[in-house]
Amino acid sequence: MRFDGREANELRDVQIETNYLKHPEGSVLIQVGDTKVICTASIEDRVPPFMRGSGKGWISAEYSMLPRATEQRNIRESSRGKVSGRTMEIQRLIGRTLRAVVDLELIGERTIWVDCDVIQADGGTRTASITGAFVALTIAVNKLYEEKDLSSFPVKDFLAATSVGVVPEHGTVLDLNYIEDSQAEVDMNVVMTGANEFVELQGTGEEATFSINDLHELLELAQLGMTSLFAIQSTALGEIVERIGK
Amino acid sequence: MRFDGREANELRDVQIETNYLKHPEGSVLIQVGDTKVICTASIEDRVPPFMRGSGKGWISAEYSMLPRATEQRNIRESSRGKVSGRTMEIQRLIGRTLRAVVDLELIGERTIWVDCDVIQADGGTRTASITGAFVALTIAVNKLYEEKDLSSFPVKDFLAATSVGVVPEHGTVLDLNYIEDSQAEVDMNVVMTGANEFVELQGTGEEATFSINDLHELLELAQLGMTSLFAIQSTALGEIVERIGK
Amino acid sequence: MRFDGREANELRDVQIETNYLKHPEGSVLIQVGDTKVICTASIEDRVPPFMRGSGKGWISAEYSMLPRATEQRNIRESSRGKVSGRTMEIQRLIGRTLRAVVDLELIGERTIWVDCDVIQADGGTRTASITGAFVALTIAVNKLYEEKDLSSFPVKDFLAATSVGVVPEHGTVLDLNYIEDSQAEVDMNVVMTGANEFVELQGTGEEATFSINDLHELLELAQLGMTSLFAIQSTALGEIVERIGK
Amino acid sequence: MRFDGREANELRDVQIETNYLKHPEGSVLIQVGDTKVICTASIEDRVPPFMRGSGKGWISAEYSMLPRATEQRNIRESSRGKVSGRTMEIQRLIGRTLRAVVDLELIGERTIWVDCDVIQADGGTRTASITGAFVALTIAVNKLYEEKDLSSFPVKDFLAATSVGVVPEHGTVLDLNYIEDSQAEVDMNVVMTGANEFVELQGTGEEATFSINDLHELLELAQLGMTSLFAIQSTALGEIVERIGK
Amino acid sequence: MRFDGREANELRDVQIETNYLKHPEGSVLIQVGDTKVICTASIEDRVPPFMRGSGKGWISAEYSMLPRATEQRNIRESSRGKVSGRTMEIQRLIGRTLRAVVDLELIGERTIWVDCDVIQADGGTRTASITGAFVALTIAVNKLYEEKDLSSFPVKDFLAATSVGVVPEHGTVLDLNYIEDSQAEVDMNVVMTGANEFVELQGTGEEATFSINDLHELLELAQLGMTSLFAIQSTALGEIVERIGK
Amino acid sequence: MRFDGREANELRDVQIETNYLKHPEGSVLIQVGDTKVICTASIEDRVPPFMRGSGKGWISAEYSMLPRATEQRNIRESSRGKVSGRTMEIQRLIGRTLRAVVDLELIGERTIWVDCDVIQADGGTRTASITGAFVALTIAVNKLYEEKDLSSFPVKDFLAATSVGVVPEHGTVLDLNYIEDSQAEVDMNVVMTGANEFVELQGTGEEATFSINDLHELLELAQLGMTSLFAIQSTALGEIVERIGK
Repeated sequence: MRFDGREANELRDVQIETNYLKHPEGSVLIQVGDTKVICTASIEDRVPPFMRGSGKGWISAEYSMLPRATEQRNIRESSRGKVSGRTMEIQRLIGRTLRAVVDLELIGERTIWVDCDVIQADGGTRTASITGAFVALTIAVNKLYEEKDLSSFPVKDFLAATSVGVVPEHGTVLDLNYIEDSQAEVDMNVVMTGANEFVELQGTGEEATFSINDLHELLELAQLGMTSLFAIQSTALGEIVERIGK
Repeated sequence: MRFDGREANELRDVQIETNYLKHPEGSVLIQVGDTKVICTASIEDRVPPFMRGSGKGWISAEYSMLPRATEQRNIRESSRGKVSGRTMEIQRLIGRTLRAVVDLELIGERTIWVDCDVIQADGGTRTASITGAFVALTIAVNKLYEEKDLSSFPVKDFLAATSVGVVPEHGTVLDLNYIEDSQAEVDMNVVMTGANEFVELQGTGEEATFSINDLHELLELAQLGMTSLFAIQSTALGEIVERIGK
Repeated sequence: MRFDGREANELRDVQIETNYLKHPEGSVLIQVGDTKVICTASIEDRVPPFMRGSGKGWISAEYSMLPRATEQRNIRESSRGKVSGRTMEIQRLIGRTLRAVVDLELIGERTIWVDCDVIQADGGTRTASITGAFVALTIAVNKLYEEKDLSSFPVKDFLAATSVGVVPEHGTVLDLNYIEDSQAEVDMNVVMTGANEFVELQGTGEEATFSINDLHELLELAQLGMTSLFAIQSTALGEIVERIGK
Repeated sequence: MRFDGREANELRDVQIETNYLKHPEGSVLIQVGDTKVICTASIEDRVPPFMRGSGKGWISAEYSMLPRATEQRNIRESSRGKVSGRTMEIQRLIGRTLRAVVDLELIGERTIWVDCDVIQADGGTRTASITGAFVALTIAVNKLYEEKDLSSFPVKDFLAATSVGVVPEHGTVLDLNYIEDSQAEVDMNVVMTGANEFVELQGTGEEATFSINDLHELLELAQLGMTSLFAIQSTALGEIVERIGK
Repeated sequence: MRFDGREANELRDVQIETNYLKHPEGSVLIQVGDTKVICTASIEDRVPPFMRGSGKGWISAEYSMLPRATEQRNIRESSRGKVSGRTMEIQRLIGRTLRAVVDLELIGERTIWVDCDVIQADGGTRTASITGAFVALTIAVNKLYEEKDLSSFPVKDFLAATSVGVVPEHGTVLDLNYIEDSQAEVDMNVVMTGANEFVELQGTGEEATFSINDLHELLELAQLGMTSLFAIQSTALGEIVERIGK
Repeated sequence: MRFDGREANELRDVQIETNYLKHPEGSVLIQVGDTKVICTASIEDRVPPFMRGSGKGWISAEYSMLPRATEQRNIRESSRGKVSGRTMEIQRLIGRTLRAVVDLELIGERTIWVDCDVIQADGGTRTASITGAFVALTIAVNKLYEEKDLSSFPVKDFLAATSVGVVPEHGTVLDLNYIEDSQAEVDMNVVMTGANEFVELQGTGEEATFSINDLHELLELAQLGMTSLFAIQSTALGEIVERIGK
């Protein structure tokens, strides 16, 4: 039994509230246990300079935390005048993985801005961001699909993310919360598609290492979590689900 | 009748949900019509350099908007690498007005960080921030009061803020929403205490001017709004209200 | 009697030297007691991006202090790499209030850059900047009026600024110098037009409050100061005065 | 056969020249095909603020490219005024993986600065940096070990890195050069220890995905490359090798 | 005859008004033709980190231009967020040359901040800054000498600067104004002491070169200008002159 | 005899390895004693904004040091977020002097970027950079000359740089290394053309001065060094030498 009473292979309670905000084309509030993230998707009718004239669209993600999302207050990155390395890594990850399940040619020369703002953090903020951002993005893409009468639905498959890790005394566990994450010897973020393919795999041992057998065990747990996450995303998306991959 | 059906002297619907977040010493979600702001108050056991050794505390405020709090997505200030003039003006205003109703000597050498993060904007974000921040601050101060067994309660009086303005075809109105704000000839932010004293008065005519009579009319409307706001704050604070000014 | 021997309702000695510099279209050195500010107005034949194609002009103001304008040397904002919140507030105020008395359509798609550089500070630098900048701007606009043969004179009315405040032991006073400003319980900046209308009213109690009666007293003093300031501006402008509002 | 004539499971030619520079405690020039990186290790007698008083040391890495290391000239990050997200990700990776094989308590309160400066780039700069930095670090640690007479040798095991990927028409290949890297559907960086344990695994499909079977194939290739890299590091380190893990 | 009617070996009219500002320990307004610079010297009771504990003082110079000191308005360096290369070169030059004639040990662990703010520019702003800054510095040092009862006077000799150059159709000329400077093939700044020794010599041909004979001619002209400048500085300093070099 | 056994009029050993890197149009590794600099020249088919439409080209130089090029590790300028004054001075000097020997009209509207990256420093890094950059630039220009079939060869003359100085106990010496440089009373950088004309002369006494006689002695030594440097550049350039000045 883990700190919060979960089994090793058990996700935290996940809730996704769609159309959480009034202005964005797509928005959700995702809660994974005590981790809460507002994810929005905004459509802009132009692409970054390096994409101009390509006829393709782009997905760009930004990630931030409220100063008091955490136990200790963090200094705002706008006050520091620069974005931290950690933030950059996370927002590059979110953008990259979302792009893997979207047909950018169907989008046309548009940018979809995905913003993930963590309002409360208890571990797993980057994976919750991806899982929530997929839903916000799909809602925004659906608007585009309907308004612009696109030939096919640009979202090709589901996408979700979770973490797995090795925690002392608890071994291999699924969906680490903050306490587990801070004690973990191995921490792995897994991003997968509805077809059970990997989009991203990031396994790290900060002051430890892991064997090929550890890897297998971790990936099995991750697979288990994915199945639940896809089901929750489906419920949140409602009828739009029918269009994914079509 | 105004765009949203209100009378000239009518506030929008105001709701304050206390203890909205898990980590901060004080937190609220304040909604003023479609404007939604998360206000938190965090207590840090030291003061900025210019206050060290003074025996007094400090209140420092920061204000930000999510990129898609607005109709058009805004670029994050962390990405720009600097905080805009507008943001600086607002956070200086929030800090300054809160300090007017708190006995900083009773706080001791501590900083109370007040963070106001607008998650949805529809006009009046700075006044909603002040009204909500007062509640978050009072909850945090109450924790300090109880834990440190302070001799008196450091919050001396209520504090709330609202806007009044002159809008073409509608004349003098209370609590402007975004559409009204963007059309207003005169825009005035008023911050007052429970004793009906002014803490801050900022009246501006961007491409217009106002007379002393306009001023009187505007201030009467503001006074009306304040009475309602203090009542809503009281309800949100519950029993803590008894300690204010004692 | 105040520290410097003035009555409560007495301005400091004000002098405005026009055409102080060789290159700018308009320039003055304004002295308000020991506060000295160089104000220049420069005309540029284009507008900022958000105004392009509007057919209207823009007025943009910048404010700065020499490092040793003050008792203690200040670090340059260029060395710090960023402009302080205080500076931003002041330059936004200067630009906003000047725009209220200028017909921007008559200016055409041009920017008038107003630069206020404080070379010596003894309180009231922002109000001296506005009073001086109005004269520099009017001189520059007059050149434009003559050279471009504009249909009407774009400056519609006079504009001046002063401060009033409540100082312990001295009560309500006009035109605070540095010592008074640093002791003031209430500090109010008032910007008015020649028609006795308000353009901006900013009253602040840092750790104090003020009543509606205090407000009335303060505004009466301000009105008194304005009358003198408009007369001094008229003398400085000479014949150009005839064109204002025509 | 690949573009440069290699087999799918063949590393590029790897050379490590030790003591390449005069001033640093440890330095190498590593060449992996046409990729050339200068790696240095510098010992500083203090740790970053968050480590002070812990009795432990720290390893901090920085990564940069000369502007013309690449086909097209890159703007210097010092001219841009900020470090890119890609650079931050890489330097965090280098530091994190090196820390996994060093006993930071044995180092004492010292920082080892690892600098990886790419002077010529042809793919795999981050993995070449790790492989070379390990050697530079071990040389520097050896000096510390001898001069300070440490109780044990702080480097616990070998550490090397390589890339594997899936390239169209060539399938699964080891040690991608620039052309292969830019065409790859799947790109995976693998960092391993001499004991064949993983320290870091980063697999990415930019606009593609990969299955569990692909993963197995990729990891087998990586394992093959590691064996060669450890041998080349051993030769470069000479007698110091005997001390590793002792 | 030159554009402004001067002979080749003639300085522009030079005026130095001492004690120009109220707050600084030393200040002057220097005018060299139409070039006008406010120079101040401020004494701070500590030195930069690299000098602490040395028992010696330091002189640090900063240089800036008002935006409209020039024909075309310049963007403020504080708005750009960084200081230009030209500004850095000039302020390093001013500081370095002043340090050559001051006994830093006599100053004790103090920093003298020298600020040169160009309010009107017509060529030769850096040399006017040095000539004026010497006077402001000497006045400030004199205050220190008297107040702290120093054993000797820390200023060892006079210091002045001027420019010489080769201008098409006019040949070798002394003290170039803006028009001459912009046409010059060779431009040389010379900083000398009262003992006719060089402190700094900076000769540049932007798209031209100069021979050893040109150099001799230029230096003779410079020497001539120096004699006048030292006399003007002496007059400005009055009785303090007696203490220099004693 | 000097610290390293040289005579007063003796250069250090100078080696220039051409085509050191694979990607740039021109590149060298220059070694002057223990000072080692990688110089590259890159051709870009456009000019900076201020040159557009002029029909002329531009040469822009950047200079940097690896963090551990020096005895003590330096913080990267990209980490500091800004380029130091020293770096700016050096890169302006390199660009300015190279432009003096290149016919920018023959280049056409192109920018030649010259990058000088010091990988090991032992004094004289700026002069080594100029001497090496000239060779890299000439190689790049030669490619342009051949590929674009230019009417004449744009490099008009040789360009090299060295330092001379006055060192206590050693007097006037040529080509100062780090120890000499740090002790020098007078330090002078001289940049000359193959026709024995000066392009730049920068003589500085940090806390000392120099007479006209010292100047003569220093310049004679510099002339001596130049003759050797031009010969070494000729050897490095091989047949291209024939085209210079033709």
